[in-house]
Amino acid sequence: MDGMRNLDISSNGGEFLAIGLMSGTSVDCVDAALAHFTIHEGKFRHQLLEFTSVNYPKEIRAKIFTAFQDGVGSLSMACELNFEIGAVFAKAAQRLINSSGFPRHSIHVIGSHGQTLYHQPPGNKSRKKYTPSTLQLGEASVIALKTGIPVVSDFRTADMAAGGQGAPLIPLADYHLFSHEKKTRIIQNIGGIANCAYLPANGSLDDVIAFDTGPGNMVIDGLVSSYSNGRELYDKRGTRAFKGKINEKLLAILLKDAYFSKSPPKTTGRELFGENYVRNLIELGKKMKLSHDDVIATASQLTIETIMQAYKRFLFPRGIAGEVILGGGGARNRFLVNGMRTHLQPDVKLLTHESLGVNSKAKEAIGFALLGLLCLLGIPGNIPSATGARKAVPLGKIYYP
Amino acid sequence: MDGMRNLDISSNGGEFLAIGLMSGTSVDCVDAALAHFTIHEGKFRHQLLEFTSVNYPKEIRAKIFTAFQDGVGSLSMACELNFEIGAVFAKAAQRLINSSGFPRHSIHVIGSHGQTLYHQPPGNKSRKKYTPSTLQLGEASVIALKTGIPVVSDFRTADMAAGGQGAPLIPLADYHLFSHEKKTRIIQNIGGIANCAYLPANGSLDDVIAFDTGPGNMVIDGLVSSYSNGRELYDKRGTRAFKGKINEKLLAILLKDAYFSKSPPKTTGRELFGENYVRNLIELGKKMKLSHDDVIATASQLTIETIMQAYKRFLFPRGIAGEVILGGGGARNRFLVNGMRTHLQPDVKLLTHESLGVNSKAKEAIGFALLGLLCLLGIPGNIPSATGARKAVPLGKIYYP
Repeated sequence: MDGMRNLDISSNGGEFLAIGLMSGTSVDCVDAALAHFTIHEGKFRHQLLEFTSVNYPKEIRAKIFTAFQDGVGSLSMACELNFEIGAVFAKAAQRLINSSGFPRHSIHVIGSHGQTLYHQPPGNKSRKKYTPSTLQLGEASVIALKTGIPVVSDFRTADMAAGGQGAPLIPLADYHLFSHEKKTRIIQNIGGIANCAYLPANGSLDDVIAFDTGPGNMVIDGLVSSYSNGRELYDKRGTRAFKGKINEKLLAILLKDAYFSKSPPKTTGRELFGENYVRNLIELGKKMKLSHDDVIATASQLTIETIMQAYKRFLFPRGIAGEVILGGGGARNRFLVNGMRTHLQPDVKLLTHESLGVNSKAKEAIGFALLGLLCLLGIPGNIPSATGARKAVPLGKIYYP
Repeated sequence: MDGMRNLDISSNGGEFLAIGLMSGTSVDCVDAALAHFTIHEGKFRHQLLEFTSVNYPKEIRAKIFTAFQDGVGSLSMACELNFEIGAVFAKAAQRLINSSGFPRHSIHVIGSHGQTLYHQPPGNKSRKKYTPSTLQLGEASVIALKTGIPVVSDFRTADMAAGGQGAPLIPLADYHLFSHEKKTRIIQNIGGIANCAYLPANGSLDDVIAFDTGPGNMVIDGLVSSYSNGRELYDKRGTRAFKGKINEKLLAILLKDAYFSKSPPKTTGRELFGENYVRNLIELGKKMKLSHDDVIATASQLTIETIMQAYKRFLFPRGIAGEVILGGGGARNRFLVNGMRTHLQPDVKLLTHESLGVNSKAKEAIGFALLGLLCLLGIPGNIPSATGARKAVPLGKIYYP
């Protein structure tokens, strides 16, 4: 009879190897990161050892998008997808392990986010009666039995069981990777949605404020794609925004959206700033006789101003940040970066993840490696001030192969 | 920072308290058992401390039956049901704990089977291309955060990830509860489906043979219910079968079904012996001008003969059993019990679970309490000879609150 595997923070001299597996809502690929973690003064520090991405097979990606459509995605489909996605995640983990050269038995845990198929947090006033719930698929036992490594999965359910939104979870990684004794930092991600994590100097986890500020690239991408009939998918380096002219009247209309003035914790997504939003914006632009690039410039300015307003409303009253650390695709859009630079006081540094030694592309996968490790150590993984949960609880279920 | 909870077989002097939660395909109620386990010579012995059943709320039961219908049950419905069923299971656990009087912190683990919503094992030749998969709902973190006790759930997925059918799992409990140094035993459950576990004297887990023999009460119940227009739901004590006359010609036709001659491992269910089967049988009875009770007697004889044939074909070649231990509703059907008695050699004892100190109604819940405990101890939970898995693997994912 095998005993239970034991792990605590003093195990292995406080050094841990962990893998994180992540796939986002775009369902392009599974990101896989292998990181080495050590603990200094209660904080986990990491070194990225290996990173890889594995594309989804076309037929599985198509099946996932079918399943996204409520009323179309069936139970049997979800049940099969759980095992099929598990196999794709297992493949990503295996490829990562092989290319890293590290022996399997030296890796303590795999934290696997899985693929979100459904996410309905509490507080949706547009729905009458529903049970807040969330579903990430990618069967952990499939990954664990292929790799021989314990797998932690299902990170969002426990936060929701504790009354939280099940999101955002990455601010915990931001805290461990970026928080500083003397510097107050904002970690600003500009993906489809823009989100920030405020880390006051010498602060604890309880001091972290994190939320979605509003659209990041989602609206800009939608405009560019629609105006170009799909030939361009995003505004490379902000070229089109630079050519256009910000329309203050349109911008004022867009800034009135109730989401922006709502106090955190708050999260948003495709439901609010997706296809419908872009379609309406294109209509507005037409009515106001604006050029395509004017609308793109105005939408880009919306991203900048909503981020800056959020700082002024919700963060700076607690203390100005000394550094804003940009990540995500938006960090490569010069229009957005210049705009933020203009709004920030001159003594606030605008940095990138990379300048602080963090691979921005790998950060989410690193985050789930860390969350997997925390689960194995019995340490809570949610930040109640960020998710709205009643209390900090451990996240994830463990499958020991 | 909290350390990981540790548990091995020498913890707590080798004494453990575990809760099992179970709901079957009839979706009537959640059975909850609290048992005290000790280990003697590698086998877990149990004492049942408390047992209770909690009915499903009507609206959740209705939602589950809607979700059963493929193409009707949607992904969002499954996602919500996971949390709703979790709440029902949590309530059952809380009621059990309260009535037991045992303090929560003295209970090591809750093993929660959950509610099976979908189960498609490998080897279904009637389906062209599919991914073997299984889905049990009842969110573990909901149960764990309500009770403060670690919850193990999702017992069937890992066996399937290892190539098995994900069923049957209860023979492992049969082995620990009933196996004997000197006596070869068959544990015969007659529920809707009849299944047996063969435990050779002084045998190891590898020697266990377990499979579904065929219909138990499912066909008899279906006939009685249909003939009485729903006024009777089952043949109480076998009264109607005793009044009828077995028709040998009809019996011979029924015995020809390919399932009965197929070698184990094998499982069956409502797909084969459900409503369609009963409808066809009623038609045959009409054509052959048999009385209702004749058809019921013949169907009852089918249960008896398929059980006895299975013993002769697949079990007794390995050694005659000294004891057959009956459980399930069929153990109260005198026609079935008498019929088995007639077929067995006079020196084979026919006993009940209760005569050996095991509450037959609570057995499945006790089984999942044990499986939950095994998971926490890192001990495999499947029997490859019973499920068809490539190897023995730990079953279940652990959520530590």
